[in-house]
Amino acid sequence: MNILLTGRILGALLLFLATALLIPVPFSLWYDDGAALALLAAATTSLAAGAVLFLNCRSNKELSLREGFAIVSFGWLFYAFFGALPYVISGAIPSYLDAVFETMSGFTTTGSTILVNIERLPESLLFWRALTHWLGGMGIIVLSLAILPMLGVGGMQLFKAEVPGPTTDRLKPRIQDTAKLLWGVYVLLTAAETLLLMYGGMNFFEAICHSFATLATGGFSTRNASVAAFDSPYIDWVIIVFMFLAGINFSLHYHALRGRFQEYRRNEEFLAYVGITLVVTIVLTFLTLDTGHGSLATSLRDSAFQTVSILTTTGFGTADYELWPVLAQYLLVFLMFIGGCAGSTGGGMKVARILLLFKHAQVSVFRLVHPRAVRLVKLGATPVDREVMQSILGFFALFMGIFVAASFMLAATGLDLVSAAAAVIATLSNIGPGLGSVGPTDNFSHVSDPGKGILIFCMLAGRLELFTVLVLFFPSFWRK
Amino acid sequence: MNILLTGRILGALLLFLATALLIPVPFSLWYDDGAALALLAAATTSLAAGAVLFLNCRSNKELSLREGFAIVSFGWLFYAFFGALPYVISGAIPSYLDAVFETMSGFTTTGSTILVNIERLPESLLFWRALTHWLGGMGIIVLSLAILPMLGVGGMQLFKAEVPGPTTDRLKPRIQDTAKLLWGVYVLLTAAETLLLMYGGMNFFEAICHSFATLATGGFSTRNASVAAFDSPYIDWVIIVFMFLAGINFSLHYHALRGRFQEYRRNEEFLAYVGITLVVTIVLTFLTLDTGHGSLATSLRDSAFQTVSILTTTGFGTADYELWPVLAQYLLVFLMFIGGCAGSTGGGMKVARILLLFKHAQVSVFRLVHPRAVRLVKLGATPVDREVMQSILGFFALFMGIFVAASFMLAATGLDLVSAAAAVIATLSNIGPGLGSVGPTDNFSHVSDPGKGILIFCMLAGRLELFTVLVLFFPSFWRK
Repeated sequence: MNILLTGRILGALLLFLATALLIPVPFSLWYDDGAALALLAAATTSLAAGAVLFLNCRSNKELSLREGFAIVSFGWLFYAFFGALPYVISGAIPSYLDAVFETMSGFTTTGSTILVNIERLPESLLFWRALTHWLGGMGIIVLSLAILPMLGVGGMQLFKAEVPGPTTDRLKPRIQDTAKLLWGVYVLLTAAETLLLMYGGMNFFEAICHSFATLATGGFSTRNASVAAFDSPYIDWVIIVFMFLAGINFSLHYHALRGRFQEYRRNEEFLAYVGITLVVTIVLTFLTLDTGHGSLATSLRDSAFQTVSILTTTGFGTADYELWPVLAQYLLVFLMFIGGCAGSTGGGMKVARILLLFKHAQVSVFRLVHPRAVRLVKLGATPVDREVMQSILGFFALFMGIFVAASFMLAATGLDLVSAAAAVIATLSNIGPGLGSVGPTDNFSHVSDPGKGILIFCMLAGRLELFTVLVLFFPSFWRK
Repeated sequence: MNILLTGRILGALLLFLATALLIPVPFSLWYDDGAALALLAAATTSLAAGAVLFLNCRSNKELSLREGFAIVSFGWLFYAFFGALPYVISGAIPSYLDAVFETMSGFTTTGSTILVNIERLPESLLFWRALTHWLGGMGIIVLSLAILPMLGVGGMQLFKAEVPGPTTDRLKPRIQDTAKLLWGVYVLLTAAETLLLMYGGMNFFEAICHSFATLATGGFSTRNASVAAFDSPYIDWVIIVFMFLAGINFSLHYHALRGRFQEYRRNEEFLAYVGITLVVTIVLTFLTLDTGHGSLATSLRDSAFQTVSILTTTGFGTADYELWPVLAQYLLVFLMFIGGCAGSTGGGMKVARILLLFKHAQVSVFRLVHPRAVRLVKLGATPVDREVMQSILGFFALFMGIFVAASFMLAATGLDLVSAAAAVIATLSNIGPGLGSVGPTDNFSHVSDPGKGILIFCMLAGRLELFTVLVLFFPSFWRK
């Protein structure tokens, strides 16, 4: 691996982080919340570290696969390490490990928190928390639609963005061009949600923080009670719609903005995503009808909110689903494994992978009966070749393997069975809240330090489609 | 599908079942337990049904794949339906569904019971219960080493018995020859265990019942407290050793009896199986040291017993592991997914598949970094081709899919999360007891009727390597 080239790019990323750390400063001055100096100190530290790396590492070599893996994994890790500084310097989160947990949870768009009282945080740090989500989401869009397909991770080559670059004569759109177009969509949707939330009575600060957390399918709120704190059906529905949009492949949105709405209808993953959302919402509505409030409208709203919040792996809450019937809870756990669409900011295994697993099972059974027949698995009209199908099966096996192993290790730190498994899936799928002692009304502060370490790993591995992180643990990766 | 040919063979199987139903009659007469007439009535019914099928269905055609699938699945189903009759006719188990559950649990070597008070059953029916295990085990050995490899189910082609037929000039050993040799080993081990248990103080009836349940990795005991009732370290250790032997590929035992002991050492699956057993036993010994009894010898014995009992999917109990620390319980849950070796009477996903999944993950990661390198997954010295690897990955995905879906459906019938998931894995892996309300000191009587139906399906599907049963649900299977 070319360490100099990797170092230079990581340096550049830290310089960008330093700039990002300055964005919350105006909020700090406006609210006079006393965190401005902490932010400036963190920005300076990132600037210094970034400059040292950037200026000392030079290389004329081209980027290869290995540097790609290292830059992505260490990029997220560096962001968590340096992005945690404002919390620690300001004293808002005294433990550095807790701060790294919170920041990793931000940049991986997970939304699990170790904060017992969120509202005690200075406004500028709440904004920073939301911003880590939003920047993480930007990273994920490019990663899943441009970088991972190139690296060939877990079948992601299927989901390479078919967004043309601005100059149509170039055959291969470059990463930068694709990124800019998709980020345009991302910014537009964020702005639209912010305005709609302000129209519903939120102030600018809360509106933008919640929009950041929605579009990134993150789930950090500025309130202890999450979205329930606003107690407004209008706000609930706005957030439901935007969470739902954030869970869709962003290249479809791009096409739609260009007037090609038929792309949604043609996309099999999107149709499955709509189907799951509708079916689960309807089932949950009936299951929760006689638990508490009673009104059909409330049941429908709470059910739609929780379905979309968990399927898209956002993790916002309007209802304590641990008070729902067991079956309803189980349905939600089911959703936790699925996640959003490929190419969205959502986590989890992705709807497309689950869909392909089902189709593969069907074809396997067919082949048993007709050993000589040739029948390929297709996604929409695209045949999925065996290599990709094997990657997807391997991804599933690895995902379940990590889920079981990490749950086991977390249980070893003293958590009960349900809480341990729920904490792992909540972080591995980048959702946020789980069940049991890490449920929607609880937080992760009580998890032991080794436990937090395991969950930080889960967030990172889950967000980067597992293989990207795991290659780093293989000695052969580091050899010449 | 050739229904006539299938019918004829199923008829022959029922005639065999009728004979088997007569075996417990001497026990009934000896103990004067009043169940002799019920057994005779059941045998007559099986005889009649078998004769009708056998005499009316004639076909000159050769067996094809489709008939193979149908005969295996319906064979087990018919055995559960007709094998349940003695319980119902004698009034020992009044509900026919319960009796089918108990019999399916027997023939699939699961060991889950709906009996609240086992000791109230007539001796001859307790013997029948153990006999269903033993006959099921015989079926499984042939199925997994001779039939399923031919049908190409879930990568089982890897485990085709390399046991030569008695006439060495024939290149392809026939199923019958293979079966006879392996059954010889099975009978020999059963006889050895029976004698050793009688030496330890059990009477002939209890010794043979427990030997049947051990060699089949079934788990039905004649006592409410399972093996704990005998309170004898000697008996515990005898059963540990024979459960361990029953979890090993029977073709290895065959080679050993021929003096080729080195076959064990050469078999990678066997080595992994030994490794898992040792590591888990040692960890559990330390974890359970300070819970209750305190003595190292007791901890070691209970830990070895529970590890082997669950890994081999037997399900006998000497300790209530629900009183053990959470971590210990989680380790056991972990084992529930693994199961015994391929070609043993054990259920679960099988050690070889889990081993290959790990190797596949390793090779996948290697390929990401070295896209042009060729590296195959190997089991021992045998390279595993892509087709087989894909079958195994597909098997894993399907296993986890059925586990999640069935748990969800079972939770819908009113069970709590942990009990529902534990009941499903306990039946799908053919173990017996689970956790929660279906734990080692509980039983399955409280599960609702639809819930019992789901679990009967899980036992059958798990025992027949999933695909064998699932093909029957595809319309194309039934078409010409």
